Amino acid sequence: MGWQDEIEAAAARIRGHVVRTPVLEFDGFGLDRPVALKLEQMQHTGSFKARGAFNTLLSLDVPEAGIVAASGGNHGAAAAYAASRLGHPAKIFVPEMAGASKIALIERAGADLTVVSGAYADALEAALEHEARTGAMQIHAYDAQPTVAGQGTCFREWEEQGLEADTVLIAVGGGGLIGGALAWFAGRRKVVAVEPRTSCALNAALEAGGPVDVEVSGIAANALGARRIGSICYDLAVEYGAVPVLVEDDAIAAAQLALWQQLRQLVEPAGAAALSALMSGAYVPEPGEKVAVLVCGANPAPDPLGV
Amino acid sequence: MGWQDEIEAAAARIRGHVVRTPVLEFDGFGLDRPVALKLEQMQHTGSFKARGAFNTLLSLDVPEAGIVAASGGNHGAAAAYAASRLGHPAKIFVPEMAGASKIALIERAGADLTVVSGAYADALEAALEHEARTGAMQIHAYDAQPTVAGQGTCFREWEEQGLEADTVLIAVGGGGLIGGALAWFAGRRKVVAVEPRTSCALNAALEAGGPVDVEVSGIAANALGARRIGSICYDLAVEYGAVPVLVEDDAIAAAQLALWQQLRQLVEPAGAAALSALMSGAYVPEPGEKVAVLVCGANPAPDPLGV
Repeated sequence: MGWQDEIEAAAARIRGHVVRTPVLEFDGFGLDRPVALKLEQMQHTGSFKARGAFNTLLSLDVPEAGIVAASGGNHGAAAAYAASRLGHPAKIFVPEMAGASKIALIERAGADLTVVSGAYADALEAALEHEARTGAMQIHAYDAQPTVAGQGTCFREWEEQGLEADTVLIAVGGGGLIGGALAWFAGRRKVVAVEPRTSCALNAALEAGGPVDVEVSGIAANALGARRIGSICYDLAVEYGAVPVLVEDDAIAAAQLALWQQLRQLVEPAGAAALSALMSGAYVPEPGEKVAVLVCGANPAPDPLGV
Repeated sequence: MGWQDEIEAAAARIRGHVVRTPVLEFDGFGLDRPVALKLEQMQHTGSFKARGAFNTLLSLDVPEAGIVAASGGNHGAAAAYAASRLGHPAKIFVPEMAGASKIALIERAGADLTVVSGAYADALEAALEHEARTGAMQIHAYDAQPTVAGQGTCFREWEEQGLEADTVLIAVGGGGLIGGALAWFAGRRKVVAVEPRTSCALNAALEAGGPVDVEVSGIAANALGARRIGSICYDLAVEYGAVPVLVEDDAIAAAQLALWQQLRQLVEPAGAAALSALMSGAYVPEPGEKVAVLVCGANPAPDPLGV
């Protein structure tokens, strides 16, 4: 099947399991034009990742040992939630650096959770060891076909809700979400790939002519800090000409504050990164160009009502 | 004009000045059925009150001295915002008990602000003195025809967005919002009036056969704590048979937590009160009854990103 068919199939599969997240048009943020927003951070477990997780679990045979994932937070929570709703055991390895609020989120989602000292790479190593020992199915956070197709349903849904934009701005971590957008839009709309200067795996890959390792840091690192862009995303970005844009951490923080103060949407830094490209002028649309921003994640630390 | 015409006129007047707030259907909160939600807390200054404020300023002659209001927070912010956008001076008197985050909100909205020691009654006295001295126009928070018609546009808009519910649950303070709902629906849908047991001016009025003073306290008091229900609301509640329901503070807090944990909507207690009636069983819908909840306000204290 081609991507369009894969995404149609994913949408049919995950219907009823995911939130049809709301959209609106908003005239504010100091911009010279209204912006269309989709509030995908209202998805189960607070990010788009529930789409890919449900599509993966519903399209593959899950072994009795269930699933295993390593995650800086959002992916682990989504995988645990989907597994729990579908009756599969979930084992999640999370690095300490994910922070208390994302760790609590994964626990609430119903996972058997192990906090690994160190960084994401250490959690991944533990997850691979668990997979080898138990036969549990490893759920990749972004570079897998069912994951990308699942995330692509977000954009199919947005068009069903009347998306009119010429250009859609999307934050990039490992590339699962923007991969889904590129696959779904297939060149019909311009896709702007927004990365923090401190975590810019796609920009680096496009410069180098292929995925390369990058250093990651900054305020959005635990959500956008993939060390290497997924190859599925990279290929789609080249095929459809994704427009790479870099934003500074302080621009992300300003967009995060604007989303709260102007729209009462409290998001994590990654969830504000795409908007920050417009607010800071990192991406300047043409006169008349209609723009849209996907708000992708809302698991801030500290949690305003908990840990 | 009748209410329907007043609300149509208000909608035409305030178009472009207010946010067309998003709606969604959500299956969660431990309920036995999906619930339709309108996220009116995404309105300018974080509550529905911007609708009534804009309708008031756009339908009356505003004197050179501008407007004056006394407010526990949300009304003052909305009045200040609307005045500032329309180029009128705004003088807002706010009691200390409004708290730092609502006081900062009113300042951001562009008002000349005076914090009055004591409670709402003291702020109101100062506002009346200012009105008498300067000729500024007093903007009432709820018991005025342009205010109620403005709030009514929220429900007109919701129907335009496809509202299908048999029953709409709405939190009640002074009665401006639910008055607008009753006026717009005019008996076509059941309206459930949700009040905290600790701030129940409408329940008390319906029992007494007319508006009476009540004591107010509890976690939603600075938004829902009107001492006496507005007479416009009371008359509409009797005419159309609003169904009064009382909720406890801990049920409100549980609904506030659920809105954050399940939908990443961080609201103030008043904004969660209507949902709490369903979650706590204070209102039990019939089998097959379709329910909707208006989320009305999101100015929590402390502010998660500021004071």
